[in-house]
Amino acid sequence: MDAIHPPARAERATLSPAQARTLFRAGLELPTAGFSDGYAQANLLIVPRQLAFDFLLFAQRNPKACPILGVLETGETTGELLRDGDIRTDVPRYRVFEGGQLVAEPTDLLEHWRDDLVTFIIGCSFTFESALLAEGIEVAHVAQSVNVPMYRTNRSTTPAGSLHGPLVVSMRPIPAERVADAVRITSRYPAVHGAPVHVGEPQRLGIADLAHPDFGDPVHIPEGHVPVFWACGVTAQAAVMASRPPFAIAHAPGYMLITDAPDRRYQVP
Amino acid sequence: MDAIHPPARAERATLSPAQARTLFRAGLELPTAGFSDGYAQANLLIVPRQLAFDFLLFAQRNPKACPILGVLETGETTGELLRDGDIRTDVPRYRVFEGGQLVAEPTDLLEHWRDDLVTFIIGCSFTFESALLAEGIEVAHVAQSVNVPMYRTNRSTTPAGSLHGPLVVSMRPIPAERVADAVRITSRYPAVHGAPVHVGEPQRLGIADLAHPDFGDPVHIPEGHVPVFWACGVTAQAAVMASRPPFAIAHAPGYMLITDAPDRRYQVP
Repeated sequence: MDAIHPPARAERATLSPAQARTLFRAGLELPTAGFSDGYAQANLLIVPRQLAFDFLLFAQRNPKACPILGVLETGETTGELLRDGDIRTDVPRYRVFEGGQLVAEPTDLLEHWRDDLVTFIIGCSFTFESALLAEGIEVAHVAQSVNVPMYRTNRSTTPAGSLHGPLVVSMRPIPAERVADAVRITSRYPAVHGAPVHVGEPQRLGIADLAHPDFGDPVHIPEGHVPVFWACGVTAQAAVMASRPPFAIAHAPGYMLITDAPDRRYQVP
Repeated sequence: MDAIHPPARAERATLSPAQARTLFRAGLELPTAGFSDGYAQANLLIVPRQLAFDFLLFAQRNPKACPILGVLETGETTGELLRDGDIRTDVPRYRVFEGGQLVAEPTDLLEHWRDDLVTFIIGCSFTFESALLAEGIEVAHVAQSVNVPMYRTNRSTTPAGSLHGPLVVSMRPIPAERVADAVRITSRYPAVHGAPVHVGEPQRLGIADLAHPDFGDPVHIPEGHVPVFWACGVTAQAAVMASRPPFAIAHAPGYMLITDAPDRRYQVP
């Protein structure tokens, strides 16, 4: 197969979700930040039907980390969040786990798919970043063109059945005078992680060094900025790593599902 | 067993949730409206583990009708919403369904309990009624000392796996000049049904006659009042009746679980 020519940065924002998914389906392998402006991107967790209740209950008990935007019926590969799409091919990079171990990072799931798999589509903080930018709050990892830094914390999630694990957070440095605004703005998006879980004092979360995130890339924290932490959908795959179920699939952090849902759908009130 | 002497009306409001549950456990059989002022009452659905994913997904897809406040682990009979309580005895009246048919209305579940049962605790609009009253909006069924009227509608819920059924709504007549306030006030309680789903025009919901509710009691609609409809937790048992799973248990409408959660926990922002 010929390599897919990546679209120019300016072009990425104007692609429709279906157009972007078509490129990823054809083999384009890029982080999805900056694609399809105005449309919600999502975390993914795919588990066998036998684990599906435990995971849905885990999400229900940890709604800030794992806000569920949609669930495909058992074995289904498409749905209203990805019309005419295919969950097995339309994400640029996946992670396959066996017994909690990462065993593959394929660009499609055609060899891994099973008819007993249930797909969970989970909100992503990219949605509220547009709202922060629109109110003049710079988002460091966007400005620095890297993936958002994510950290395992010393906070436990609320377990459910066989699933347990640490809370994972994403971090954005916010100017001290805009922290209250950032709280107010992101509070309006409860379906995509909502308000921060922690402001400042990373060591209280068990984060020893902000320069070494567990997932994603480090960002520079400018003078006068405070590190602000939001619950992160990668918490779902951290639970897989900690709880070691026989089989699970996730997206690769930063390589999200681009959905057909406009960001504004998730704004309240 | 001696009959339990019902507490006087004024006394009911001041009982702690644990005190009220103790009375119901001992056999008191009364609707729970007016008990334990300031604490959230809840709908109940209890299903075998095999049906638990379908129901949790049904609730996730129909959050206005079935907002989940808590889920007990498989076989568990207590939890943080009913500390030192017992879900098998602490509700004044239950309904047992086999194949979607009501087969018993016991005052406890000791003969019906199974170790594979999963208990779902679902928000109830009693919580926002206190808020309406506090802002001077009279609640007709409270003033008239009857159960809230509830109606099956012609609106379908979003199905999930084996579960489907009609949306059930509760109705409160609101003075025309306070309808906007009632919307605003109840919007603040998304975990207990939130804003109305329909204002006026009951025939558009397929309700032929407000004087003949499907559950609960009729209320008088005063001149100048508009019937306002909220999604109702009885939707869960209506799905059981429509979908006919082998076994399920619910509360009897109006005979709720009194939880330890203060109403204010469910107010946003």
